Amino acid sequence: MTTFPTPRIDEVQALIAGQRWLDLRDQLSRWPAPEIADLLRELSAAERMLVFRVLPRTLAGDVFSYLEHDDQYELLTSLSQEETRLLLASLSPDDRTQLFEELPGQVTQKLLNLLSPTDLREARQLLGYPEESVGRLMTPDYVAVRPDWTIARALEHIRLRGRNSETIDVIYVTDDKWRLLDAVELRRFILAEPSQTVRSLMDESYVVLSAFDDRERAVEALRRYSLPALPVVDSDGVLVGIVTFDDLIDVAEEEVTEDFHRSAAVEPLRGNYLEIPVFELVQKRVPWLVALVFVNVFSGATIAAFQETIAAVVSLVFFLPLLIGSAGNAGSQSATLTVRAMATGDVRASDWWRLLLKELLVALLLGSAMAIAVGLLGVVRVGWQVAGVVALTMLILVLMGSLIGMSLPFILRRLGLDPATASGPLVTSLSDIGGVLIYFSLATYLLGI
Amino acid sequence: MTTFPTPRIDEVQALIAGQRWLDLRDQLSRWPAPEIADLLRELSAAERMLVFRVLPRTLAGDVFSYLEHDDQYELLTSLSQEETRLLLASLSPDDRTQLFEELPGQVTQKLLNLLSPTDLREARQLLGYPEESVGRLMTPDYVAVRPDWTIARALEHIRLRGRNSETIDVIYVTDDKWRLLDAVELRRFILAEPSQTVRSLMDESYVVLSAFDDRERAVEALRRYSLPALPVVDSDGVLVGIVTFDDLIDVAEEEVTEDFHRSAAVEPLRGNYLEIPVFELVQKRVPWLVALVFVNVFSGATIAAFQETIAAVVSLVFFLPLLIGSAGNAGSQSATLTVRAMATGDVRASDWWRLLLKELLVALLLGSAMAIAVGLLGVVRVGWQVAGVVALTMLILVLMGSLIGMSLPFILRRLGLDPATASGPLVTSLSDIGGVLIYFSLATYLLGI
Repeated sequence: MTTFPTPRIDEVQALIAGQRWLDLRDQLSRWPAPEIADLLRELSAAERMLVFRVLPRTLAGDVFSYLEHDDQYELLTSLSQEETRLLLASLSPDDRTQLFEELPGQVTQKLLNLLSPTDLREARQLLGYPEESVGRLMTPDYVAVRPDWTIARALEHIRLRGRNSETIDVIYVTDDKWRLLDAVELRRFILAEPSQTVRSLMDESYVVLSAFDDRERAVEALRRYSLPALPVVDSDGVLVGIVTFDDLIDVAEEEVTEDFHRSAAVEPLRGNYLEIPVFELVQKRVPWLVALVFVNVFSGATIAAFQETIAAVVSLVFFLPLLIGSAGNAGSQSATLTVRAMATGDVRASDWWRLLLKELLVALLLGSAMAIAVGLLGVVRVGWQVAGVVALTMLILVLMGSLIGMSLPFILRRLGLDPATASGPLVTSLSDIGGVLIYFSLATYLLGI
Repeated sequence: MTTFPTPRIDEVQALIAGQRWLDLRDQLSRWPAPEIADLLRELSAAERMLVFRVLPRTLAGDVFSYLEHDDQYELLTSLSQEETRLLLASLSPDDRTQLFEELPGQVTQKLLNLLSPTDLREARQLLGYPEESVGRLMTPDYVAVRPDWTIARALEHIRLRGRNSETIDVIYVTDDKWRLLDAVELRRFILAEPSQTVRSLMDESYVVLSAFDDRERAVEALRRYSLPALPVVDSDGVLVGIVTFDDLIDVAEEEVTEDFHRSAAVEPLRGNYLEIPVFELVQKRVPWLVALVFVNVFSGATIAAFQETIAAVVSLVFFLPLLIGSAGNAGSQSATLTVRAMATGDVRASDWWRLLLKELLVALLLGSAMAIAVGLLGVVRVGWQVAGVVALTMLILVLMGSLIGMSLPFILRRLGLDPATASGPLVTSLSDIGGVLIYFSLATYLLGI
C-alpha cells in the first residue's frame, strides 16, 4: 500500500549498533510518523530512547503523538527536562491537550511548568473546556483573514502564518474582533483572481461548532458536511480554534468502540485492549453480569411455579435452552439492527410505528420458519403433542423476542438513556423470562396437565 | 451547530405556491447540499421535482448524491432526457459510479448512453473495477504536475485544472508517462518560493493505493495516515485517480455497520434500515437463526441424557436459564471485546496467549463474584446443597463462556473467516451446550444421584 521503504527493525538496530546516527536520522526522516511509532514499540527501551533522540524535532512530535499512552509516559520519564521542553513545544496544541488529559495530575503540572508562557496560556484554556467537548479536540493554530483584504494580500498572509498552522485547507474570515464571518477553502483562494477581495469569495453559509459542544456533534458535522476542518467559536462567536477531520476520525472510532462494548453489556472501555489492566476490565464487565443474574432469577422463579408440569413431562425441559435461546437470538438481531440504525441517523424516534409493523411481519416469517424446523425435530424425538407445543412456542417466542429487541432502544431513548444499552445480553435475559412463562403456560394448558 | 438559515419546509412551499422561482433558487443556493436533500425528502413528489429543477446545476448534482437510492431513482424517472443528461454531467465521477452500481442494469445502460464520450469512457473504466474495490470509489479528477516545473508554473496549472477537480488539497507529481512520483499537499506549494522547482518539495515518501485493493485498505490508510486524499495507481504505477477522505468516511461507516450486524448474527445489510424490504431482512436473519436452532439441539440432547437427575431434583431446572444465560453473557462480552480490538488493530493473531492468560484472570474474578451472588440466592431458595452446586457451576460456566468468546474470533481468523462472525448468539449457543453438560454432570455427581 505504501511506497516508502517501511522501517526494518534489524536495519535500524544495525545503524544503532554502528552508532551511525546521521544515517539513522536520514533513514527515519523518509518514513511517516505512524511507521516510526510502530517501530519504536518493537525496540528495547534503551534503543527507543536513542532512536527518538535522533528524530528531527517536528517529526519527533508527530511520532510521539502516535505512541500508546504508557509508551509516551515511559519516554517522558526518561527524557531530560530540556528534551521534554523541546518535545512539548513540538507537539501540536490538540495533541498536547490529549497528553495532559491522560497523564496523572502531578505529572501534567510538572509538564505545564515547562511550557512557554503562550503555550501555557493556550494549554490552560484548552484544558478548561469540559471533557469530551469540542474544546478539548481543537487547536488554535488556524489562519484567519479579513473580508476587505485582496486575495493577493490574503495569500501573502497565509504564506506567513501557514507554516505553524494545523491546516490551511480552510481559511477563516473574521472581523476585527475575531468574530467568525465565514469559512473558505484554500482552493477557492488559489482559483480566484489576486485582485478580488476576500469578501467576493464569501457566501456566509458555513458550519460552526461551539467549544462546549459534545465531541459527538463534531463527528456528526464531519459525516454530514465532509469538511477537512471545522471552526470552533466561543459564546460570543469569537473564533477560538479549529478541529480537523483526522482528529474527528479518531473520535468517531472511539465512539463506535463504545457502542460495540455497550452492545455486549460492557461499560465502555478506552485505550488498547491489551494494555487495559485486569481490574479495570472486571469493573467494566461485572455490573451488567450481576445485574442480569437478578433479571434471570425471574426465569428461575417462573420455572419453579411450573414444577408439576415439568415433573409430569420432563421432555419439555429438553427444548428449554433451544426455545429461549432462539428468542434471545432473534431479539439480539432486532436490537442491534435498531440501535445501529439510530446511531447512523437512519431511524428516528418517530419511526417506531413504521418499524413495529415491519418487525412484526419479519418476525412472523422468521418464527414460522423456525417453528417448522424445531417442530420436525420434535416429532422425531418426543412425538407430535410436545412437538406441537414446542413449535407453537417457538413462533410466539421469536415474535416476542424480536419485538422486545426492536422496542427497547426506543424506550431507552424515550427515558433519556443511551439506546445502545439495549444490549444482546439484556434483551436475551428479558426474553428468557417471557419465554419460560409462555412455554410452560402453553404446555400446561395444551397438554392438559 | 450551523449558522445558515436551515431550510424551513413551509417557507419553501410558500415560494413554490407563489411560483417565486428566482427567490426559491436564491434561498436554496445559500443552504448546503445535505440540508436540501433532507428538505426534498419531506416534500411531495411534485414539489420535489419543482425544487430540484430550480437548483443551480452543480448544486443539483451535490444534492442528488445525498439522496436515498429510491429517491434518486424516482427523480431520474421523472426527469426529461435532457435534464437527466445535464444532471449526470454535473455529478462527480465517483458519485456517478455509485449511482450506476445501485440502479438496475438496463437503467444504467440507458443512462450511460446519455453521457458525453469522455464521461462514458471514464464511467466504463470505473465500473470495470471489482465491486468493493478502491477503483469503484475513486475519481479521475485530480491535478498532477511535473517535477521540473517551477512552483509558479505549477500554481498556474493548478488554477487552470483545479476548477473541475474533486480536491486540490493534495497535488500529485507524475512523470511524462503519468506514473506517480509523489503526492504533495497544496499548502506546501503555497508556502514555497515561486521560483523553486516542484522537485524541491518532493520527499518521495507517500501512501498509494492500487485500484484493485479492497476498499477497506483505503479506510485503513485514511485512519493511519489521515490524509485528505489518497492517490490510486494501476499495475504499471500510472496514476488513475484519487479517493477523498469524505468518501472513505462513508465506507468506514458502512463497514462498521456490517460488523455490528455480524455481531448479532445478521448477514450484513446495506442501505437505510427503514427502506430495506421485509423479505431481504428475513433472508439476512434466518440463516443464522435456523443454524443456531440445530446447535441448540445439542443442549436439548444433553438435557435428555440427564432426565433422571432432573426428575430426582426438579429444582435444578430453576437455575438452568440463569446459569447458561450468565455463561452466554460473559461469552458475548469477551467475544465483542476481542472482535472490536481486532478490528481496530489493537489485537493481532499473535496476541492470543497474552489475552488468554488475562481473560482467565478476569473471568475467574467475574465468575467468583457471580458465584457468590447466585449462591446466596440459592441458599434461600433451595438449601445449601443445590446452592453449592449452582455456585460452583456458575464459576466454571463464566470461565468457559469467556474463554469460548475470547478464543472463537482467533479460531475463525485462523480459518480464514471474518472474526466478527463470532457473534453473541453463536457464542451463547455454544456455551449453552457446555453449560448444560457441566451443570447436570456436576449435579449428578455432587448430589450423588
